[in-house]
Amino acid sequence: MSQHTLTIVPEGLIPDLLTRDASFTAVEKVFAAMAAGEAYNFPVVREAIGHEDALYGFKGGFDRTGGVLGLKAGGYWPNNLDKQGIINHQSTVCLFDPDTGRVTAMVGGNYLTALRTAAASSVSIKHLARKDAKVLGMIGAGHQATFQLRAALETHAFEKVIGWNLHPEMLPNLAKVAEEAGLPFEAVDLPGMRDADVIITITSSFAPTLMADHVSPGTHIACMGTDTKGKQEVEAALLARATVFCDEVAQSISIGEAQHAIASGLIKEQDVTQLGAVINGAHKGRASDEEITLFDGTGVGLQDLAVSAAIVEVAVANGTATVVPL
Amino acid sequence: MSQHTLTIVPEGLIPDLLTRDASFTAVEKVFAAMAAGEAYNFPVVREAIGHEDALYGFKGGFDRTGGVLGLKAGGYWPNNLDKQGIINHQSTVCLFDPDTGRVTAMVGGNYLTALRTAAASSVSIKHLARKDAKVLGMIGAGHQATFQLRAALETHAFEKVIGWNLHPEMLPNLAKVAEEAGLPFEAVDLPGMRDADVIITITSSFAPTLMADHVSPGTHIACMGTDTKGKQEVEAALLARATVFCDEVAQSISIGEAQHAIASGLIKEQDVTQLGAVINGAHKGRASDEEITLFDGTGVGLQDLAVSAAIVEVAVANGTATVVPL
Repeated sequence: MSQHTLTIVPEGLIPDLLTRDASFTAVEKVFAAMAAGEAYNFPVVREAIGHEDALYGFKGGFDRTGGVLGLKAGGYWPNNLDKQGIINHQSTVCLFDPDTGRVTAMVGGNYLTALRTAAASSVSIKHLARKDAKVLGMIGAGHQATFQLRAALETHAFEKVIGWNLHPEMLPNLAKVAEEAGLPFEAVDLPGMRDADVIITITSSFAPTLMADHVSPGTHIACMGTDTKGKQEVEAALLARATVFCDEVAQSISIGEAQHAIASGLIKEQDVTQLGAVINGAHKGRASDEEITLFDGTGVGLQDLAVSAAIVEVAVANGTATVVPL
Repeated sequence: MSQHTLTIVPEGLIPDLLTRDASFTAVEKVFAAMAAGEAYNFPVVREAIGHEDALYGFKGGFDRTGGVLGLKAGGYWPNNLDKQGIINHQSTVCLFDPDTGRVTAMVGGNYLTALRTAAASSVSIKHLARKDAKVLGMIGAGHQATFQLRAALETHAFEKVIGWNLHPEMLPNLAKVAEEAGLPFEAVDLPGMRDADVIITITSSFAPTLMADHVSPGTHIACMGTDTKGKQEVEAALLARATVFCDEVAQSISIGEAQHAIASGLIKEQDVTQLGAVINGAHKGRASDEEITLFDGTGVGLQDLAVSAAIVEVAVANGTATVVPL
């Protein structure tokens, strides 16, 4: 009988432990494992608990290749910032030993959620955008948009960032990240997105912002904001015009950007391919320089678990984790 | 912004911290809160993960009156004992602050699961058995049966324990607990259960053992073994003859003992009453000394959470909990 311990990595340590590179590698690997049938997400529990207007739930999964089992628990407490001075999204990851069912680690889930979401669009850009992509377009300029932009800039030799936001006064968030990377930033109107080779949408919109005729042939679009029934960032006709990829088909067609094109009959479930199949080589990915590719990223529990496992490994190796006997 | 800490109560400490009394009180209260609409269980996630023949999942819930939010995660690893020398059922409870969504505590879930299951049948016996009950009958004599028996003996002035088990060589488990309580124990055949005033069934049977004509008028029966589609401990006709109570109606009629009587049309969903309604006084409970009452205990996440919250309170008060800054 082995000594049983719990490894704890508190939220505050994670920005120093988790790199964008490590997030990228973890997400890329687990997407591949999902497409290979070696990893799967459990049904998601999501409850409006009738207290503090909170949404709370669990996203679990198991990755046989990585030996990673567990869940992210938490949700959205809209009054946190005003009442408590802490962020509204709060989550915690618990990892379990798949050989015994015993808990092994607890990891703060807030910062890692931002990085794994950024990693997902970057993995899609690496595998689906044209190699000669030069202009990166951003729709959305909130806190999460800065994470998406920073990560995306590491995938290609971009020369310029352009951006649009419903509230233009937030665009300096993007300009600052571009500047840090030594790139010019330009605010554009939506038709101005025709200049982009890659577009990331990261908003909480419930109506389409980016229309099909705002997008030039050969563009790759990563739609990262739609994770709920009713949300929508891009015109459904754009999905019909594009080759559509996603993190998980079941989520994409029910709560992702593809829900609208599916509901209106513009595309079918079999038109949506898991990005992991491209990573695996089972799908060829982009077919031509004229093709529009679109990644529908809804966010799955396995991303959280994969990144958490990477964090635990680093924290144990460098001695920063708290280890408690159980 | 408050200092955020995690309180850990490891499995090994819990037998010294958790009393049968505290388990009973916590389960009784949360059953009442459920019936009052103040507490509810989330959909259960239960997955055969395709590794080590394990079943893994999450049972979550929220109790507004108790301010308790969280989940029990874990499951059944059938090879644990042989391969690792640890028990096959492994689970862990995580509690969250319902005001902020932040994790507050982690509690070992193995021993508390045994005690909360024992508490459920005891709560039903306290509220539904005749006050003059003298003979306690046990169907099943495994490890969990000893927990059920020990707890049940504290509810009434029982004078005798009788028992039956498919493998009679296990009956000394029951005799030992009876002896500790100063009571005689007698092994009986199934018709011998007609002498019992209270019967607890706690087996993993997939076919009925206790038949309707093995039960005398005025008896209270607590069926505690059936928590899965297909399992069955008592003849469906017994539920038609009895007034049926349960922990949670949705589970009772789908995965509990009532599933069979419902499926064969012998009883309807509205014939099953939550025990909490009796605790609350909304239902009068036992109507006469001749009535047969039957409690269908399937086990809900809120029991685990309520007992865990009680454990954390004691462990913090007496300084045995491990408190880690987060």
